[in-house]
Amino acid sequence: MKPEVIAATHARLQPHLVRTPLLTSADLNQFLFCKIYFKYEGQQITGAFKSRGVLNALLKLKEQNQLPAHVVAFSSGNHAQAVAWAAKLLGIKATIFIPEDASPFKIAATKSHGAEVIITPDRQTAEAQAVEFAKDAFLLPPYDHDDIIAGQGTAAFEAWQDEGGFDVVFAPCGGGGLISGTLLATRHFSKDAKVFGAEPLLANDAAQSLKSGMIQRLTSSPNTIADGARTLAVSPRTFQYIQQLDSILEINEEEIVYWTQWLTHLLQVRVEPTSALGMAAAYNWHCAGNYGKILIILSGSNMDEKTEQQIWQQDFLSQKPGML
Amino acid sequence: MKPEVIAATHARLQPHLVRTPLLTSADLNQFLFCKIYFKYEGQQITGAFKSRGVLNALLKLKEQNQLPAHVVAFSSGNHAQAVAWAAKLLGIKATIFIPEDASPFKIAATKSHGAEVIITPDRQTAEAQAVEFAKDAFLLPPYDHDDIIAGQGTAAFEAWQDEGGFDVVFAPCGGGGLISGTLLATRHFSKDAKVFGAEPLLANDAAQSLKSGMIQRLTSSPNTIADGARTLAVSPRTFQYIQQLDSILEINEEEIVYWTQWLTHLLQVRVEPTSALGMAAAYNWHCAGNYGKILIILSGSNMDEKTEQQIWQQDFLSQKPGML
Repeated sequence: MKPEVIAATHARLQPHLVRTPLLTSADLNQFLFCKIYFKYEGQQITGAFKSRGVLNALLKLKEQNQLPAHVVAFSSGNHAQAVAWAAKLLGIKATIFIPEDASPFKIAATKSHGAEVIITPDRQTAEAQAVEFAKDAFLLPPYDHDDIIAGQGTAAFEAWQDEGGFDVVFAPCGGGGLISGTLLATRHFSKDAKVFGAEPLLANDAAQSLKSGMIQRLTSSPNTIADGARTLAVSPRTFQYIQQLDSILEINEEEIVYWTQWLTHLLQVRVEPTSALGMAAAYNWHCAGNYGKILIILSGSNMDEKTEQQIWQQDFLSQKPGML
Repeated sequence: MKPEVIAATHARLQPHLVRTPLLTSADLNQFLFCKIYFKYEGQQITGAFKSRGVLNALLKLKEQNQLPAHVVAFSSGNHAQAVAWAAKLLGIKATIFIPEDASPFKIAATKSHGAEVIITPDRQTAEAQAVEFAKDAFLLPPYDHDDIIAGQGTAAFEAWQDEGGFDVVFAPCGGGGLISGTLLATRHFSKDAKVFGAEPLLANDAAQSLKSGMIQRLTSSPNTIADGARTLAVSPRTFQYIQQLDSILEINEEEIVYWTQWLTHLLQVRVEPTSALGMAAAYNWHCAGNYGKILIILSGSNMDEKTEQQIWQQDFLSQKPGML
């Protein structure tokens, strides 16, 4: 895809979605002697950027008079809620396969949008059953689709429109949909801005893929607290864009928890651990002697109480950022 | 004081403070079949409404050419940070007495504004030493002062200006500064709107005082999670206003935790447990068969990791509001 696609995508989505706020923290900027802007997707509909891509895919089908009567997806997280919400908006049926270890809260949220939810014993079964089901319904993949990638890119697009002039952009990398769209959106505005993906060290398949030049697949679901980045592998489609990034930075679990606490405190909003990846990467980049005007995409705000417990079992707020 | 005082106070404070957002949740309104607006003081400077009252007291002294060179306060919470911040803004010295069981995080935040912090063995000693110290400095009380009450009232004042038409207003009650100011601000716009205070059942001195017609004082610091409402007693000054309220509603600890979780989730902002008091009271009022357009003052967003752990050790998010 060409960067211009993102502008057209944004025009398509704008009437239906929230223009999420671009946040900044005077304290953080002062601690780190730099200027950081946060695109806060926690206030997007369903609490994450995922609604952008899913709605874009469905609206494009509708423009082509090919809107399916029934969509299907597999997910234990934000994608499930996004599909359920977008299907309701367009008046079509949704069936979502969710592994039974997903939080009851996320299952309830998906059902509350009127989707049919089918619980499966594990993630692999959810995927297999959804693919089987796709004979009778349209399968909405979580990231491996041009329209989904273009939709996710509209978050960064809005940040460039609202503020712009960024020297460097950071976003988390799971399956690669968000970081690919972020790269495209950034190239629409700047040929030179650096773009980095951020990934948990425990789920560093994209970083490994980048090093080896071939897509590497994790053999089991990684145990990172950043549940939005537990994907086993990127796709050939997203890998094309990932290879154009300046790098993928790997973040350990302590850094994820540290920055989840600090972003919650400094921005006074709710951030899920996956959102902390970009900030941790930006901090490490900055501490390595780099400077510039920074944009960080915060992926969302959906968390269950178990994740909250894990986040808050240590106290990092007594140490100022810069003292990690 | 007359309600008109709040308008003049707001004009005085406006250039220095954040006009905090008025939030609403479509999901919550739908669950409860009513319209609720939240004045979110978590985004006020220092993360709570307290900056309003303290700054008002100091700006009034400055207008009268009586700005002291040195202020003193005792607090383990939001008042400490507000005094430290306001003193720095006006270029004067601040000394704050803080009991040693206060969180290291709040002590660090107070110091970060340049205040001198003196740690004392307990709350009583902090108060006694601050009063002693006040021979050489101006003592800023947390609530027992007309200018502090008027300052706190500017939060509700902004909500009435921004939206208005409320049938009923809820705010938490600790020492009574916020609820007194909220009552005054409401009367500036409406003679008829009901105003309720909300208090932890474990710290129900104001409710007891209201019932008996005399100020009742708790004998020891109450063990409620709503740390902003742990005050032992209201003052004669705030009791005057409390006696004009429709009532003080008492909230148990489970309700406080339940609504802290749900407000965090529904509004996607950080709310301290004291903020949940107003929502719990509004919910109980509504469930008793009352209807109307509701304003709830959310006091702030400052919490340490121990409080976060307590909040998230149970899961209430799997039950929709309305099923408590």
